[in-house]
Order: sequence, then C-alpha cells, then structure tokens
Amino acid sequence: MGSLSETERDRILAAVDTAFESQVGFLSDLVRCASLREQESEVQQLVEATLLDRGYDVQRQMIDQALIGRHPAFSPATVSYENSWNVIGVRNPSTSQGRSLILNAHVDIVPTGDPKRWRYAPFEPVRDGEWLYGRGSGDMKAGLSAAIFALDAIRAAGFELTAPVQIHSVVEEEITGNGAAMALASGMVADAVLIPEPTDEKLVRANSGVIKFAITVDGKPAHPREVSGGVSALEAAMRLITCLRELEERWNAEREAKPFFDDVDNPAALTIGTIDGGEWIASVPSSCRFEGRIGFYPGDDPHQRVKEFEAFVATAAAEDPLVQRCPNPAVEWVGVVHAGYVLEPESEAEAVLAEAHTDANAPDASPLQAYVMACYLDAAVYSVHAGIPSLVYGPIAENIHAIDERVSLPSLRRVTKAIALFAASWCGVRPIEHAS
Amino acid sequence: MGSLSETERDRILAAVDTAFESQVGFLSDLVRCASLREQESEVQQLVEATLLDRGYDVQRQMIDQALIGRHPAFSPATVSYENSWNVIGVRNPSTSQGRSLILNAHVDIVPTGDPKRWRYAPFEPVRDGEWLYGRGSGDMKAGLSAAIFALDAIRAAGFELTAPVQIHSVVEEEITGNGAAMALASGMVADAVLIPEPTDEKLVRANSGVIKFAITVDGKPAHPREVSGGVSALEAAMRLITCLRELEERWNAEREAKPFFDDVDNPAALTIGTIDGGEWIASVPSSCRFEGRIGFYPGDDPHQRVKEFEAFVATAAAEDPLVQRCPNPAVEWVGVVHAGYVLEPESEAEAVLAEAHTDANAPDASPLQAYVMACYLDAAVYSVHAGIPSLVYGPIAENIHAIDERVSLPSLRRVTKAIALFAASWCGVRPIEHAS
Repeated sequence: MGSLSETERDRILAAVDTAFESQVGFLSDLVRCASLREQESEVQQLVEATLLDRGYDVQRQMIDQALIGRHPAFSPATVSYENSWNVIGVRNPSTSQGRSLILNAHVDIVPTGDPKRWRYAPFEPVRDGEWLYGRGSGDMKAGLSAAIFALDAIRAAGFELTAPVQIHSVVEEEITGNGAAMALASGMVADAVLIPEPTDEKLVRANSGVIKFAITVDGKPAHPREVSGGVSALEAAMRLITCLRELEERWNAEREAKPFFDDVDNPAALTIGTIDGGEWIASVPSSCRFEGRIGFYPGDDPHQRVKEFEAFVATAAAEDPLVQRCPNPAVEWVGVVHAGYVLEPESEAEAVLAEAHTDANAPDASPLQAYVMACYLDAAVYSVHAGIPSLVYGPIAENIHAIDERVSLPSLRRVTKAIALFAASWCGVRPIEHAS
Repeated sequence: MGSLSETERDRILAAVDTAFESQVGFLSDLVRCASLREQESEVQQLVEATLLDRGYDVQRQMIDQALIGRHPAFSPATVSYENSWNVIGVRNPSTSQGRSLILNAHVDIVPTGDPKRWRYAPFEPVRDGEWLYGRGSGDMKAGLSAAIFALDAIRAAGFELTAPVQIHSVVEEEITGNGAAMALASGMVADAVLIPEPTDEKLVRANSGVIKFAITVDGKPAHPREVSGGVSALEAAMRLITCLRELEERWNAEREAKPFFDDVDNPAALTIGTIDGGEWIASVPSSCRFEGRIGFYPGDDPHQRVKEFEAFVATAAAEDPLVQRCPNPAVEWVGVVHAGYVLEPESEAEAVLAEAHTDANAPDASPLQAYVMACYLDAAVYSVHAGIPSLVYGPIAENIHAIDERVSLPSLRRVTKAIALFAASWCGVRPIEHAS
C-alpha cells in the first residue's frame, strides 16, 4: 500500500479507458431496470450476476426487520422488504496487508413524474453527446458502474488488491437508509468506505441529518351548499405547510453556530414531496395527507429533532384558528430518521483520494474540493455508527430527482479512474500470480 | 284535478302511514347499494324491479355520449357511461285530463371518506331514534323512496292519477347532471317536475349555476439538496388556490344585484374538493392537480363564467412570481357546466305544493317556505332547457357529503305525504275501476 508507481498508475488508467464502452453498456443495462422502491430485485439480480461473473463471493442480504427499532442505524419502515435486498460482493486477498475498503452504491431510484415531460423515455437510456440520460443514471447507477469497473481495471491491469474489498449494492437509500443499515448491522465494516454519489467530482465534507414525516389532518367534510359548516382538511394542510416554513427558517438560522454549514444556503431544506387530499370534487375535503423531509446538523440527535418537529406541529395546529377546529394532526415517521456526519479534514483516506483525483485528471484540473451536501447519504450510516471514514465522491450529474436526469460520461470516466487509483493505493496492489 | 276532497286526502295520508315501515325498508335497501359514480347499476336494478313490480312501463335509458357538446343540457363527461344508466318509469292514465308530472331523484352518491370516522358503517343503514343513517340516506335516496311510495299511496287509497306520471331515477347528478340531461334530451317532459332533494321541507326558490374544474400545474422537480433550482408544483397549486379565493370573493360581491341571492352567505362557494401532487417524499413535486367547483347566478351564461375563470387563472399564474416559473396551468372542465334557475314566485305548481305541504303537516306547522340553494340541482336541467316549473322539496337531512349522513324519518313521512297530495292534486285523481 501507499503511492502507486507510475507504471502501476498508467496501466490502471489505461484499463479503465479500455473497458469504458463496456462500462457505459453496463450502466445502460442498470438504467433499464426501473428499480423504484420495492422493485429493486431485477437490478439486483443483474448486479449479482455481474459480481459472480467476476469471481466475488456474493450474497443476497435480506433486511432483518426485527432489527428496526433495536439497532440505531435503522429508520422506520412502512413497507415489506420481501423483494428489496442488498447484494454484497466480497473479494479477500490471498494474504492481507493493506487497508480494507467498502465501495457502496444504492440501486433504488425515485419516480420519474410524467415521462412525457422527458426528452427521452426515462428507462430507455440514450447517449446524447457527452451525456447519458435516464432515471437513476446519475443517482447513482453511474457510481455503481464506477465501483465495479474501477476494481475490474485493477485486475485487468494485472494487479490484485492486498486487502479485502467489499461492494455493497444496497436498497432503500432514497427513503430509509435501511439497506446500508443492514449491511453495517451484519458486521460488514472496513477501514474506509467510498460512495460514488453524484457530487460533481467533489468530496462531501459533511451532510445533514434528515427526518422524513407524513402528516395527516382530518377536516370536517361538508356539501358546497353549506361550506361554512365544514372545515377543509386541504386548507388546514396548506396552513400547516405554511407554518412549517417557519420551522425551516428557525432550523436554518441555527447554521451560524454549526461547523461547515455556516455558508450553506438552505441546510434544513424542508421539502413537501407529496400531497393527497379529499375524495370528491364537490365536497369539503375530509382528510389530507402530505409527506416531506427536513434536515438539521451533524451532531444533532435525530430523535430530539423528531420531538421538536412534533411539538412544533402540535403548537401550530393549536394556534391556527382553522386547524384548531380539526382533530390533532397525526405525524408519522415514514423514512429516514438519521444523524448527519462530518468527514473530519486531514484524514488519511481523504489524502489518498485527493492524490487519486489529481492523478486521474488532466494536469490543469483543480485539486479535490470538499463541500457540504444538505441531504441524507448512506455514508452517514457507516460514519455515525461505526466511525468508518466515509468518502462520498462521484461524477457530474444533472437533474437528479428531476426531469431529464443525466450523467456526464467524461466525468464518469475520470471518477472511475480516481476510484481505481484510490482503491489500489488504499488497499495496496501486487501483481496477480497466475497458477502454473 | 284541483283540490282534493277531505276523504281523498285522508285516505291518501293514511295509506302513506300504512306503508311507511315498508318505505323505510326500501330506503335501507337503496342505501345498502354503494352507488358511487360508475357503480350505480346495482341500485338501478333495484329501482327497475321495484317499478316493474308496481306496473310501470319501465326502460333503462343509456346516456348517449354523442349528445355531449351538442345538446345544451349536457356537461363534459370524463368517464364511460357503460354502467351508468337512468331508469325511467311511466304510468299513463286510461284517459288523461290533468297535468302531467315528473318525479325525479338521483341515485348516485359521493364517497364516504374514512368509514372509521362514521358512527355506523356508511352502507349498513341503521335506524337510531328518529334518524336513518347512511351515505345517500338524505342525498337523496329518501327522496326517491318518497316519490315511489307517494304514488303507491294514491293507488293504495283506491285512486289513479288522471294525467301521465314519470319517475326519473337518474345518475350523474353529483358530478355532471348528465343523467337528468339525458332524460330531458330523450323528449321526456311534463307540466311540472318535483325533485325531493333534502331541503328541510322547504321549497328551493333558486339555485346557483355551477362549473366544475380541474387544474394541473407542473413544477420543476428537484432534489432536496438543491431545492432552490426547483419549483414546487404543490406550492404553485397552493398559491393558485389562494388566488382563487379572490375570484370567489369577486363573484360573491356580485350578489347585491342578483334577485334572491342578496342575502345568501356564500353563493360562489368555491370548494376545492381534491388535491393530488408530487411523486416522492424527497423530491420537489413535478406536478399537482386539484379539482373543485364554483357557483354563480341564475341567468349567467355558464360558458361565459368558464371563460372568466380561465382568464382569471391565466392572469393569476402570470402575475405570481412562483407560478410564473411554471408552464401555464391546465384548466379542464370535468363536471357540470350549467346555469342556475329560478322558480318564479306565484306559479300554479308552487301553490299546489304549498297546499299539499300544509295538508301533510300538523295544523300548527309553518306554511311552505322558500329559500335559495347555492349548489347544482338537476331541477336546473328541466327548468333552464325546457321551461318546466321545477319544485325541489324534500326531507330534513344532516351531514350530506359529510360524515354520519342521516335523514329524519318523521320528516320523510311528512314529505311523502306532501308529495302524494301534490301529485294527486296536480294530476287529478279518480277511483280505480276494477276490471269485472
């Protein structure tokens, strides 16, 4: 382990180039699998076959729902995980002398919205110039392809790693983080984890803690001929949403005292993602439910934030002249309830990645930059609960969770190279000895 | 025709009493049929069998969708009417000398909301004291039972009407009015129509014109880590809903110049009945759709109001700093687009009903009162497009379109009596001659 020789480096970089078209083909295959929540089994079968093909020890890892509520890495689940399982690939060296590594990527994706609004059908990946389009292309199937093809390149260059490496292809990142939680809870740890989320080739210095809620408010339905006798659950929901903007502002205001977050535009980033209310066009709505997420700061206890949120909603409901005419709004926790993490500066892992980033890039490229990402990342699971240095670093992508999601292929190539060089340096390499 | 003799009256009133328990049983059977939109065929089969049993000429009347857009009584349809058909029962006298009559009632009902919030299961009618509970009990299956059992009582008292009578058991009142429109467009007219909607034993003097809309607004979806790059379709929808309250206020303000409406609290009664937006808890919503209705005044051209509404939405969208960042909201017309009507005072039909009301009630009861109902009623179809005097008069009910809908059984009994006396007076009666 340690710095690579120029020859080692060049051979690995060349191997990434050689296989890159094949990598784009694999990425396209991943995108074709519409791996929405509870529909990840097709893409996981593809990953499983891909890893088996490469000689990894592969296991399907079910999520043990009994751990939810008992192990702190888990968040509340609202669905069955019968068809949602991790794929774990492990390769152990014949003799281990380097530092072990986990490469993690999630395979679950978010819905597309109306596919007619997309330039290309979201599950029929299209290469247009330097971009590959498709839902999940950036977030984060490109990263998964980078992890697998980076390790491929090391072997194609004639080297094997001298420390154990694991690939964690996980589910549930977009909602609960319970895929990564399960991987960790099963005892799979390492000296570092790298997660190639789409980060514009930057390193994540810290992320936010996040809690995901659903609020249901019941109104008093009525006929349009006597609306004044009713209370619209929709109008009550709108008022609660407006009130929650005050909570967002309050939590955002705390940033001044928070390391790394003081210049983040909107760390709380209250997002109301869905709403569903009423049952008839000409009735005052009897019920309305909306779901969303809100963030806070590394070091904050997420369960304390949950209490703060619930108290805020209860007070807002009690004080609003309309909402107070409804039963108390019901707050449910339907996704991640997790702390944020900080990648403390000056770690060995970061230094090795910075060097790999530089070596993978053109000589005039900027050195590795770090920034704060105000959202949930599976890195928080490995970092918060096991203290593993967690590097989130991946390609340039645009429109993630949006329309016309796309990933930059030149960026993906550079990132794949950087990951390959990082893995080789971190774990160490030696020439593959061929059996006689 | 003309005033009934005391004997005739007493025999008819006694016949209503005699059959009343049977009527409540029939009403309960009607309520057991969950005749939501597109699910009316079960209840219509029951009505059909009931009318056949009584010797009416009965037809199933399909809605001819080709008439929609061509005949002015019809409103836009968004569903197939394959399973939604009217039942028309007609009885013609051997010789006709009186005034003909249509008794109309709609069988469609609105959704219940969460049945757990009901005291009794909404489709398992329960008699509790003077009330019968159940969705549709008041709006308006009680009225349908009153129409059928009022005519039964006349025959049970030994009389037959001396003018044609029709029972229109129609669909679609709660959304488009296309059931009544079809009955009228098929050429079925009469000298008066009576519709026993739940009116607290009062007569409707006028109703509002109503238009039913759906508005879809598309936003710019985004990931929570970059919310500022997105535009929430939900937030845009909330702003449009807030703007529409201004339109409601503007239309309400017109009431001062409108006969009968000057003391109506909220004639426009903008009701946003449903909302559905977003596709993922942690994405800025890409789209949001809400549906609702708004009212105006008799004499107003509903198509002019449609244009006014569309122009208002377009202007509001263009002027709002957030909504203007979205594509133009799409306004669809998904239900009734219909004018209101006025029952001009001092009609012969009203005078006959007033007398029947008095005769059906205790001596100290108040005389027939008239009031304005700020909602759509099928009476508008018969009144506006055929100039038929349209009497909307029915029992006391509570919580229509709400939770724990119920109808007063003593009130239903009185109304059934009033309808029986009205029909007998309006159409005329003579003793049934039994075939030797």
